[in-house]
Amino acid sequence: MSKLTHFDDSGAARMVDVGAKPVTARTATASAVVQMATETADLIRQGRANKGDVLGIARVAGIMAAKKTSDLIPLCHPLPLTTVQIEFEWLPEAGLKISATAKVDGKTGVEMEALTAVTISALTVYDMCKAVDRGMTISEVRLDHKAGGSSGDFRNPVETQGQ
Amino acid sequence: MSKLTHFDDSGAARMVDVGAKPVTARTATASAVVQMATETADLIRQGRANKGDVLGIARVAGIMAAKKTSDLIPLCHPLPLTTVQIEFEWLPEAGLKISATAKVDGKTGVEMEALTAVTISALTVYDMCKAVDRGMTISEVRLDHKAGGSSGDFRNPVETQGQ
Amino acid sequence: MSKLTHFDDSGAARMVDVGAKPVTARTATASAVVQMATETADLIRQGRANKGDVLGIARVAGIMAAKKTSDLIPLCHPLPLTTVQIEFEWLPEAGLKISATAKVDGKTGVEMEALTAVTISALTVYDMCKAVDRGMTISEVRLDHKAGGSSGDFRNPVETQGQ
Amino acid sequence: MSKLTHFDDSGAARMVDVGAKPVTARTATASAVVQMATETADLIRQGRANKGDVLGIARVAGIMAAKKTSDLIPLCHPLPLTTVQIEFEWLPEAGLKISATAKVDGKTGVEMEALTAVTISALTVYDMCKAVDRGMTISEVRLDHKAGGSSGDFRNPVETQGQ
Amino acid sequence: MSKLTHFDDSGAARMVDVGAKPVTARTATASAVVQMATETADLIRQGRANKGDVLGIARVAGIMAAKKTSDLIPLCHPLPLTTVQIEFEWLPEAGLKISATAKVDGKTGVEMEALTAVTISALTVYDMCKAVDRGMTISEVRLDHKAGGSSGDFRNPVETQGQ
Amino acid sequence: MSKLTHFDDSGAARMVDVGAKPVTARTATASAVVQMATETADLIRQGRANKGDVLGIARVAGIMAAKKTSDLIPLCHPLPLTTVQIEFEWLPEAGLKISATAKVDGKTGVEMEALTAVTISALTVYDMCKAVDRGMTISEVRLDHKAGGSSGDFRNPVETQGQ
Repeated sequence: MSKLTHFDDSGAARMVDVGAKPVTARTATASAVVQMATETADLIRQGRANKGDVLGIARVAGIMAAKKTSDLIPLCHPLPLTTVQIEFEWLPEAGLKISATAKVDGKTGVEMEALTAVTISALTVYDMCKAVDRGMTISEVRLDHKAGGSSGDFRNPVETQGQ
Repeated sequence: MSKLTHFDDSGAARMVDVGAKPVTARTATASAVVQMATETADLIRQGRANKGDVLGIARVAGIMAAKKTSDLIPLCHPLPLTTVQIEFEWLPEAGLKISATAKVDGKTGVEMEALTAVTISALTVYDMCKAVDRGMTISEVRLDHKAGGSSGDFRNPVETQGQ
Repeated sequence: MSKLTHFDDSGAARMVDVGAKPVTARTATASAVVQMATETADLIRQGRANKGDVLGIARVAGIMAAKKTSDLIPLCHPLPLTTVQIEFEWLPEAGLKISATAKVDGKTGVEMEALTAVTISALTVYDMCKAVDRGMTISEVRLDHKAGGSSGDFRNPVETQGQ
Repeated sequence: MSKLTHFDDSGAARMVDVGAKPVTARTATASAVVQMATETADLIRQGRANKGDVLGIARVAGIMAAKKTSDLIPLCHPLPLTTVQIEFEWLPEAGLKISATAKVDGKTGVEMEALTAVTISALTVYDMCKAVDRGMTISEVRLDHKAGGSSGDFRNPVETQGQ
Repeated sequence: MSKLTHFDDSGAARMVDVGAKPVTARTATASAVVQMATETADLIRQGRANKGDVLGIARVAGIMAAKKTSDLIPLCHPLPLTTVQIEFEWLPEAGLKISATAKVDGKTGVEMEALTAVTISALTVYDMCKAVDRGMTISEVRLDHKAGGSSGDFRNPVETQGQ
Repeated sequence: MSKLTHFDDSGAARMVDVGAKPVTARTATASAVVQMATETADLIRQGRANKGDVLGIARVAGIMAAKKTSDLIPLCHPLPLTTVQIEFEWLPEAGLKISATAKVDGKTGVEMEALTAVTISALTVYDMCKAVDRGMTISEVRLDHKAGGSSGDFRNPVETQGQ
């Protein structure tokens, strides 16, 4: 039967003991989509080209947030990340797809780091554009891929697309 | 024409000057939905009832994250929150809706605090259940309602539901 | 019947809503005792006089920790402290009493800030002396006094002394 | 003669250079006792059973605090903890014993991480119950056991008990 | 005789008690100069125009650092900043002048927030360009101006220029 | 042609991928000079000798800041520092030279940690003395030396002196 590893037999939460696991190269990629009004997407794209770089700031926010993951997610292990990279892609109909890849040589994976990066990056886009578009929605926050570690590789069967 | 207030005329990012604004009571409610496998939802609900309290930990994570909002979102003002409250509701078909309400007496609003709370709370659910369900997805992260401040009230026209 | 205010009627934890409370001047004093070997107490006192200032560093650690209280204690409100002060007093038989006073003009009290200050200050003394005395014990961590706010003043009936 | 290793020959504080030490598996267990009124202990135990889970929140707070140790204790090294676990035990006469075990594969020990975990966990209990019992006292904060590293094992000769 | 207010009569450090001071509008402007090789300045300016925005990232870093000031400077009060703004100006001979203005409605000033902003912004420029120019130097870090508060206005008599 | 490694080919900022680099022993030394009025230097030196230890607090602030480097500098990797040490030296004409050495066994260097340590240490001196000398200036913030890693050793050709 499946078990939630973050709890011991008595039901007490714990940071799982990974001491006996080997150090291996691990990578994870996550993504999210920010759905917004067409006018908002236009404003962001214009800023990109000349001034008011919303995505540049959202990228920095995501990278910095990845480094805070173990401070935000209660049972996450602190990890010496070797890289964090964030990409933006415009989907049809004013959807902004944010993807983040995190890597570490460690005893546990970096899924939460990649997910935290895309989420905070998306919230930063919201923050910078909320004065003109409070109805923006963040969706499709998911793990796309992970590799390394004893649980093996994972690739999300859902192909991420705009809404 | 609409403008992104987080940039000055030269396109430089800034923390907007709210010094001249009056201190008023402000509130914001945001929500998110974690879509998961039925078995995962069952595991969480069982833990609730006796041991392995996923939602209790996700609630604490969300409240603590709300207090870190200005540390995560680059241009957010630090705010002395007067309350943060988080609620969980099960939607049909294994969707977990997370709602957060934040309040402050301040010169600027608490939308980002409410959004950060639900997002990190949702990521915490993901973290605690990812060993059994890596395909969980977070969606419908949105601002439901805000009140107080010169920009007036906002109520999201979209009625939040499961997927 | 007495109630734990940090939970709502359903048992869910929350940061208590203090929005409706008036801003008043609040103060709290807490203390702790670090019990150590006589030789350790001598080492600290000698350092005080000429070099290796254990207490100077423990004082800075306590003041800085007070400012992190709402980041450490899950349901604490963030507060704009107006002062933190820490005092050391040697008790008979190698007991070091650490007292901290915190103040704020706010809607809620600063008991936790004073308690966090003395606790982290005491742990810093432990850290700096642990190479010579791993048996040091911290005890009598208590709130000595608080004033301000609707719950009125409190003065701890126990007179703090060495063990 | 014994020496405080956190100071150099001139008396200047430093983060001790552990670069030349080997990486070894290290573990530390610390504990603390929260002494409270019988009614308070009853309230906590009742909440445990059905709603208002004080100890669940205190456990999360302790685990998260362990990860912040090097941010709180000035001369502590940052360490990639491999596990943190916290246990609660009720002693006779309304004493709550909190024990924490921390582990790392590192060049220096995790005593301070275990001590920080029990201390912040205890303060969280205080915070959640202070509205009904301001006289609670934290005592017997001590290192129970450590293993690994060149200084060898340590087991505290004092048997921890209630007061 | 002049006195260092951060110490009490016994020489103990303290966070100065500002509780009795009135809340007033306060502002501070600080600046720093990063002196670099001509080729480095050219690289930064080119990135500005099309890709690789060093200054955009340095600006975000400075704004975020200002919000961490009380976490970095031991005896600083936590302050609810109402704005932080950062400007860059190229001086003759490859000097980059960074200026920051911080404001608050508070009981104490924001000089340290403005100084922290320019300093971390300058270090971020160093970090991003160090692979091509390890000899960069940060100098002329100074308070240019402050206003508000009982100690009155201050304007630095030194006119900031390149080296 | 020289390149800024913190950007990819499209100009997007990233935390450089150091996963493939070997772990080696790395060290870096940086320094800064705080120029102040003669009376201010006298006050600091007197405090040193008997009470009001400005430099002791500035040293702690610098060590603690080094541990926060990856939280402050957006694209820095988190690193498990093995030591941080800070030294003070009085230069002729009231100049205070602050030097910091940081070390790590890691995949990337510790230049930014040493630079952050001296900078925050210098700002702490400013903070503690600003009530008597707002005109203090921090200058000559530079990397003096680094060793370890594939980019080889670096020694700054400029001999640091007072102004």
